[in-house]
Amino acid sequence: MKLLDGKLASQAIKDDLKTKVEELKKLGNKIPHLAAVLVGNNGASETYVASKVKSCEEIGFKSTLIRLEDTISEAALLEVIHKLNYDNDVDGILVQLPLPKHISEEKVIDLIDAAKDVDGFHPVNIGKMVQGSETFVSATPYGILLLLQHYKIETKGKHAVVIGRSNIVGRPISILLSRNDDPGNCTVTLCHSHTKNLKEICLQADIIIAALGKPEFLKADMVKQDAVIIDVGITRITDASKKSGYAIKGDVDFENVSPKCSYITPVPGGVGPMTIAALLMNTYKANSLNHDL
Amino acid sequence: MKLLDGKLASQAIKDDLKTKVEELKKLGNKIPHLAAVLVGNNGASETYVASKVKSCEEIGFKSTLIRLEDTISEAALLEVIHKLNYDNDVDGILVQLPLPKHISEEKVIDLIDAAKDVDGFHPVNIGKMVQGSETFVSATPYGILLLLQHYKIETKGKHAVVIGRSNIVGRPISILLSRNDDPGNCTVTLCHSHTKNLKEICLQADIIIAALGKPEFLKADMVKQDAVIIDVGITRITDASKKSGYAIKGDVDFENVSPKCSYITPVPGGVGPMTIAALLMNTYKANSLNHDL
Repeated sequence: MKLLDGKLASQAIKDDLKTKVEELKKLGNKIPHLAAVLVGNNGASETYVASKVKSCEEIGFKSTLIRLEDTISEAALLEVIHKLNYDNDVDGILVQLPLPKHISEEKVIDLIDAAKDVDGFHPVNIGKMVQGSETFVSATPYGILLLLQHYKIETKGKHAVVIGRSNIVGRPISILLSRNDDPGNCTVTLCHSHTKNLKEICLQADIIIAALGKPEFLKADMVKQDAVIIDVGITRITDASKKSGYAIKGDVDFENVSPKCSYITPVPGGVGPMTIAALLMNTYKANSLNHDL
Repeated sequence: MKLLDGKLASQAIKDDLKTKVEELKKLGNKIPHLAAVLVGNNGASETYVASKVKSCEEIGFKSTLIRLEDTISEAALLEVIHKLNYDNDVDGILVQLPLPKHISEEKVIDLIDAAKDVDGFHPVNIGKMVQGSETFVSATPYGILLLLQHYKIETKGKHAVVIGRSNIVGRPISILLSRNDDPGNCTVTLCHSHTKNLKEICLQADIIIAALGKPEFLKADMVKQDAVIIDVGITRITDASKKSGYAIKGDVDFENVSPKCSYITPVPGGVGPMTIAALLMNTYKANSLNHDL
């Protein structure tokens, strides 16, 4: 069993981007600039955004954190997005979700200029992803592709089983893995809450993407010998033995599943760091495309 | 074995739309108007467009057929689309594909106002389809859903195997059948040219959508007893015994497969007529949405 180490793979991507930024600076070209919008002060959102901003700084990207009260009106937030769309210095716009209930996430995301939508949530970018056109693929599925790429995992002709059909992970990765691309060209089965005989289906899988958000759901008896396991789950479980009072659990029963696998992602330190690397890749690309670099 | 009769089901939809159009007329409301753009004089395209226009007439929709020379420049075609976008009387715009090689289909489709894109090919409509938002689903996959609906085929929890990953059929129907909707909630496996052990996968299927374009590809030994078979293929095969000199073949070996099925679509007369019914449904919807009816 080998670990698919997201920290290692994301660091390699960040190192590469850092070098590229230095080259841009040398040539006097524009540096990628990510604008992150954080509404309210949800703990998890604060952590995610802080980590994204910190990663930008590490590799020399410009970043702007726009903090807004959770009482902001929808109209006022849309006005903020509108200004960022027209700000030529801003390459990527990220609105941290979830938003307060009185604001329509759909409206906000639909307003983001698709050419600055580095989160890849705008319908036009999702549509282009489906069509196989040039686009921004959203961070978690793109991060999974980058991880598979980093470890040179062969995907062509493999049977990939995706558990969970969320719009941000399960659905897009099921589409991406079945495209005529590399990584890609998998036979893909998308499973969800209405799937019968999930165990039998998982046992056929060469690659399993567990993205349903149920801690330790995938057990050893559901996994074929030498399968590749990608664990997208990340749930906090109360754990009195830990100093913090909680433990982070993935969707995979790592202890018992890992001995059977050829490759497996740890949680934390697997898909999580790749998500940020993917966001940075998208921001770099947005800068290049929007400024003909 | 029961036939999924597309002629019958599409006629029921057309009858229903006809009644609705009569009601619109009575109320003095706007009638749905489809504008079809045909470039050049490809035989198959002529037939398809003629059939769409005729169906509009049958049910009382207004239709406009815009015929353009195959020497038209890309810019001139884009100008035609632009005018149709701004023509308030036009609800649905359909550009018959394929276009001549010197014209970018992507550019043309991207220019169509998404609110008039009754073919459902615009990336924003594909993206919304993936997200499960209100949209125009493209005609062939939508027609398949309408056919399943007409015959009250239960899809929830069923294993659907889709053969072929084209952007116009295989890919979208694989997405639609796995959505949390009715029809939908299938476990979906998407197969294609790189799929290994296709036969074993097909044998697990409760529903098979054959959309690869290879005549009589799906054989009886690939089909489970009582499966539901949707045949999207339509290929002309030279056949000296026919007066026309050719026979129309689907992707399914109908003669040998049909005795094993619970339901199966004939070719012709299955998915084909449903595609037109779906286009008419989309045009009706576009009229309602764009004119608040």
